Amino acid sequence: MTRHDTPDPDELFSEERSAEVVAASFAGTLDPRLRLILTSLVRHLHDFVKDVELTEREWAAAIELLTATGKMCTDTRQEFILLSDVLGVSMLVETLNNRADGALTESTVEGPFHMVASPPRELGADIAEDGKGTPCLVTGSVTGPDGRPVPGATIDVWQANDDGFYDVQQPGVQPPLNLRGLFTADGDGRFWFRSIVPRHYPIPQDGPVGRLLTATSRHPNRPAHIHFEVSAPGHRTVTTHLFVAGTPFIDSDAVFGVKPSLVREFPTVDDPERAARVGLPNPFRTVNFDVVLRPDATDREA
Amino acid sequence: MTRHDTPDPDELFSEERSAEVVAASFAGTLDPRLRLILTSLVRHLHDFVKDVELTEREWAAAIELLTATGKMCTDTRQEFILLSDVLGVSMLVETLNNRADGALTESTVEGPFHMVASPPRELGADIAEDGKGTPCLVTGSVTGPDGRPVPGATIDVWQANDDGFYDVQQPGVQPPLNLRGLFTADGDGRFWFRSIVPRHYPIPQDGPVGRLLTATSRHPNRPAHIHFEVSAPGHRTVTTHLFVAGTPFIDSDAVFGVKPSLVREFPTVDDPERAARVGLPNPFRTVNFDVVLRPDATDREA
Ligand SMILES: [Fe+2]
Ligand SMILES: [Fe+2]
Repeated sequence: MTRHDTPDPDELFSEERSAEVVAASFAGTLDPRLRLILTSLVRHLHDFVKDVELTEREWAAAIELLTATGKMCTDTRQEFILLSDVLGVSMLVETLNNRADGALTESTVEGPFHMVASPPRELGADIAEDGKGTPCLVTGSVTGPDGRPVPGATIDVWQANDDGFYDVQQPGVQPPLNLRGLFTADGDGRFWFRSIVPRHYPIPQDGPVGRLLTATSRHPNRPAHIHFEVSAPGHRTVTTHLFVAGTPFIDSDAVFGVKPSLVREFPTVDDPERAARVGLPNPFRTVNFDVVLRPDATDREA
Repeated sequence: MTRHDTPDPDELFSEERSAEVVAASFAGTLDPRLRLILTSLVRHLHDFVKDVELTEREWAAAIELLTATGKMCTDTRQEFILLSDVLGVSMLVETLNNRADGALTESTVEGPFHMVASPPRELGADIAEDGKGTPCLVTGSVTGPDGRPVPGATIDVWQANDDGFYDVQQPGVQPPLNLRGLFTADGDGRFWFRSIVPRHYPIPQDGPVGRLLTATSRHPNRPAHIHFEVSAPGHRTVTTHLFVAGTPFIDSDAVFGVKPSLVREFPTVDDPERAARVGLPNPFRTVNFDVVLRPDATDREA
């Protein structure tokens, strides 16, 4: 067989040198961080393929899953975040980038539903615009680790309704921006608003991620929670949840988001005067969530 | 802080135990192979995230890249295969599943353009329906490793046109099924057809994969080749290429598909009588590609 004009086999792709050869193709990458990331990605991806000796049929199934996941994404549906969530990748990234420090409020996954801007609302406002569920007064404070209040901190909250859906999942069914609110803490760093006691809910199951959970006999549920994103000038933003003590699935969150420090009781208050003052029927449920931010010269990048 | 009704922290997600906790969620998977694959995937994916300490912004960029890749896919465009190709994953899967054996024709990537069924054509037919390029007579044989012919073998071929595009990339510009053909070897396992000398071409650059190549200063080109998929009852199908000796980019194929054993000369023949017989202008280019299939009781699954 004629082989002149052919390349040096030692420099070509082979099973043994696969990751090395592909990594070498990224040698000209100008951004050193990008080069590092791609080199590591290729190494781990090739290790995975070799470890399991992925078949061509399995590779084709993976291509189909990824394609379907992309196709499922819309302005109000982010199936790739959901995939990252159920594989624990979102939680890992969140955890690595917000390493625990006893004094600070711990972070957890943002999830795929923080996709519309929450409407600015007055302190005390009711974010439950669909009138469903068990009314609840949410109170809290924003401070630094030294306990000093952070006046004017921004508290962005969002949660599913009593049927277990976010507003963006039910356009035309829920009022727009239902159960979302952007609050500004008062001069003492305090905030309060009305909502409902959250319920556990399943993540969307009508897409590739739902099929993956079914194929692996995993349930799709998340324990009851309210999402919080709290920020203030000169402080590091924290993206987190407030979980309901005793909620189902607290031990088996489909997206691995539970941290014990984020779980709170939602006690019932029987106080007609206070109920009238906050605008809730008596008795009513309450929860308090004090948020501790890390002072940070450079605000966290969006 | 009240912590009753809260889960055992030792069983929850943590940086240290991230892969272990997520793998445990797949414990109920009924298909042991699926469980093995997902467990390995999660371990390698988490190792990658930890190795590079992926930032939230980088994670978001990855989500965007994957989403855009899915959005780019259509009936005639498979951007995820392209992504797999430029990361060397396709070639690795192909190589693992078709380990070399000196006597057999080596496989290489199928690529993303084998997406329409090739039209059955008579031996000797011309697949170049757009009339562009340098005419070429392609000949070859299909045999077993012992040299015994495989009569009636199926030879599926497809290639880019002289402008570097597959038919499916240029609907309305190229005739449909241009440069595709499904041939049946004769009683001696021989095949021959007319086409053009292939040229190197760039993979599609107008999508996320193109942006990735640009960001990493990688060129998008593939060395000149004709795709072959050769099959026969009782034999393992081989998906491969025939590369042109001396083609540019033979050392730096964008998808890592080159194997030295697949490179062939395309000599010029000056033989007016033969030219007239095969229906080509004299002189004309030729190439010969003898394919050796592995006898296999169970045909390769599609
Ligand atoms: Fe949620
Ligand atoms: Fe090709």
